[in-house]
Amino acid sequence: MKTKKILLRDDEMPTRWYNVMPDIPNGLLPALDPETKEPMGPEKLGAIFPMALLEQEMSQERFIDIPEDVQDVLKIWRPSPLVRAYNLEKVLGTKSRIYFKNEGVSPVGSHKANSAVPQAYFNAKEGIKRLATETGAGQWGSALSFAAQKFGLECMVYMVRISFDQKPYRKSMMHTFGASIAASPSVKTHIGRHIREQYPDTAGSLGIAISEAIEDAAGRDDTNYALGSVLNHVVLHQSIIGLEAIKQMEIANDYPDVIVGCCGGGSNFAGLAAPYLPEYLNGKNIRFVGVEPASCPSLTMGKLAYDFGDVAQTTPLLHMHTLGHDFIPPGIHAGGLRYHGMAPIVSAMVRENIINPVKVHQLECFEAGVLFARTEGIIPAPETCHAIRGTIIEATREIDKPQTILFNFSGHGLIDMASYDKYFSGDLHNYDYPKEAVEASMANLPKI
Amino acid sequence: MKTKKILLRDDEMPTRWYNVMPDIPNGLLPALDPETKEPMGPEKLGAIFPMALLEQEMSQERFIDIPEDVQDVLKIWRPSPLVRAYNLEKVLGTKSRIYFKNEGVSPVGSHKANSAVPQAYFNAKEGIKRLATETGAGQWGSALSFAAQKFGLECMVYMVRISFDQKPYRKSMMHTFGASIAASPSVKTHIGRHIREQYPDTAGSLGIAISEAIEDAAGRDDTNYALGSVLNHVVLHQSIIGLEAIKQMEIANDYPDVIVGCCGGGSNFAGLAAPYLPEYLNGKNIRFVGVEPASCPSLTMGKLAYDFGDVAQTTPLLHMHTLGHDFIPPGIHAGGLRYHGMAPIVSAMVRENIINPVKVHQLECFEAGVLFARTEGIIPAPETCHAIRGTIIEATREIDKPQTILFNFSGHGLIDMASYDKYFSGDLHNYDYPKEAVEASMANLPKI
Repeated sequence: MKTKKILLRDDEMPTRWYNVMPDIPNGLLPALDPETKEPMGPEKLGAIFPMALLEQEMSQERFIDIPEDVQDVLKIWRPSPLVRAYNLEKVLGTKSRIYFKNEGVSPVGSHKANSAVPQAYFNAKEGIKRLATETGAGQWGSALSFAAQKFGLECMVYMVRISFDQKPYRKSMMHTFGASIAASPSVKTHIGRHIREQYPDTAGSLGIAISEAIEDAAGRDDTNYALGSVLNHVVLHQSIIGLEAIKQMEIANDYPDVIVGCCGGGSNFAGLAAPYLPEYLNGKNIRFVGVEPASCPSLTMGKLAYDFGDVAQTTPLLHMHTLGHDFIPPGIHAGGLRYHGMAPIVSAMVRENIINPVKVHQLECFEAGVLFARTEGIIPAPETCHAIRGTIIEATREIDKPQTILFNFSGHGLIDMASYDKYFSGDLHNYDYPKEAVEASMANLPKI
Repeated sequence: MKTKKILLRDDEMPTRWYNVMPDIPNGLLPALDPETKEPMGPEKLGAIFPMALLEQEMSQERFIDIPEDVQDVLKIWRPSPLVRAYNLEKVLGTKSRIYFKNEGVSPVGSHKANSAVPQAYFNAKEGIKRLATETGAGQWGSALSFAAQKFGLECMVYMVRISFDQKPYRKSMMHTFGASIAASPSVKTHIGRHIREQYPDTAGSLGIAISEAIEDAAGRDDTNYALGSVLNHVVLHQSIIGLEAIKQMEIANDYPDVIVGCCGGGSNFAGLAAPYLPEYLNGKNIRFVGVEPASCPSLTMGKLAYDFGDVAQTTPLLHMHTLGHDFIPPGIHAGGLRYHGMAPIVSAMVRENIINPVKVHQLECFEAGVLFARTEGIIPAPETCHAIRGTIIEATREIDKPQTILFNFSGHGLIDMASYDKYFSGDLHNYDYPKEAVEASMANLPKI
């Protein structure tokens, strides 16, 4: 009988995270102070981040222990299953073997909880009482709400207005976990009020919401800020996905030729891919495919440059693929992939030609998502549909040369079904972010 | 390190269902033909059910093989985890050990898929092309939509109007799996049109929707009917829950003193409880607790009698606890528990004093559900909140006499978050179905 799922026991869950930074050829460029343009030490950032996370952000240690209290919470759902997509393979008529790591089994339905839990833990341990954050599609806000209450922290979520209005169930979820939510731009911050005055009808953006959360955290001693992607420590926490996958692929007696993930801020893809880097550098032939939306193509059309993470230009300057910090993403529905920048770790791996970025359109992604739901039974989040589309492209590329493909099923779509309604009703359209618009939005990159 | 989850491998999934019928002391009374009042053979029912399911419905075999094709689909999510609720135990301050079987991991978020898959399979095998069914809260309709497309069947779901209007995500889910949906009462059936004429503003009921689905199935040769609870073959399919739990509790080196489940039609509770019956009859001291809503108290206030399963009086007469087939449930939000009747298997086990029924109010159930979400991380379906409330009552009954409590986490609440919104907003109230109303609604029980 065929084995559908490879499971690990609780006691087989990794007890250390893998830090890819020391293994990236030619390394990462440091984050810069937005005022002095000098490499940023932990002192200033200590106002909004706990020291433990700042140490992880800059660490050159290959392995970092996962605290036992963090492990205990992760074990609510981890290790996550590795699943063989037999039914999808069959309907595609491919001889390739398709596996996916199901991160949709977390309490909030996505991989985001992997980093929310340690972030809440390290903040609580350093005496912080309250976290402020932003959320786009609502995945990260839910995850941090869940994690914060596990460690007795309050949680304040600035939720991009268009999601606030369109995703009532995400709000309900955050409320159930005890969080407070404000539609961003809000009246709670200077930057929020300023933008509301300038653009009373704005739908908001992740860049604005980040600015609000940072302002909130910077203004209160009891409050820190938490970010759900992009940063090195987030990628570190997500490495648990790949570390588990390595064990599970061994049990399956197989090895990935291709590793696929969707790329918004980059953390879910890097979480699966990065732990395979040492073997890749040792000569294993692995093709890493990062899939991004054509409407927000930071890897395929952006520049690798220093840029701000937010609209208000308050974050450190990160060396990353960017469309410019005042890039305004069009209203497509794969909310979590609508960020102007990309994790510096992913950007560096693209720079070194380790990761192959591809862009796809949303209609083909939803088509792939529906096919996946009807074959494998699980309805994917719109973001995850991008990874599935990328997987299908790989699996049908050379139908007679079978590959072992491993992709990250970053989250389920049960709380975002309105996107599927729009897809079925024909209200969704493809959108290529135009080259001229990219040029314009990148004109404001800071001069370094 | 504490073990949080007990998992079974794919190849440890049970390959046979357990049929409790031959083990119930004094047995079950047969279903009766609604016209002749004589025990009903398979001939008439063959118009809307496949023979394989009718054989299961009446079988006296203790074990029935699960077809390999059914096993393959079940393995998309099964075996389901057995989880120790350490965090809930801690916050309750109880020395009792609380375990739950997490049926929320299915693609549709509940135990309903356990029976939908074999029902679709046996229908497809006997040449049926289309299934008609009803759904209240939407759990069963989603499950059958999923299962039907796995075996190439069309699926027509009559969805109680109030749910159709209030649960858009459930509809989206069924659409994603390729099903057709009509708000019930609909214009597609005689009974639907009749009721719409009589009561133009009706919110619908499960009894009406069942009548419509049966009429649909009876009127077309290519179409059969499928029911998500109550019937013996549904309880049979759900036995996989308890069979897995028995193995997992052994691995946990523990044994349940108390087994708890919520009771609507009875199948999720019986699925967990029934496989423990042989050991109970052999002298094991197990307390079986069936938890029902005070607003729809068929076990605690209904009569054990022959009654119809639907409003139109088209179903066979089942010997069950009933509030009367024209009982109109109040608009509480634990939709799946709003049925006037109860599985004959559960009813017989209550008659034999094996199952202890208790009734609870919805506010205490949502309170329990929020506590569970904040401790164990998973947001329960409103129905499942009843089981959690029952578990908390048991765990805190005699705080110094620790018990091992096992409850069925029948489904998650992510697609029904609107109920939580109503709870948080204070719009929900408790409701005791009045004794006089029960008397009145039972006045129309058929004379046998």
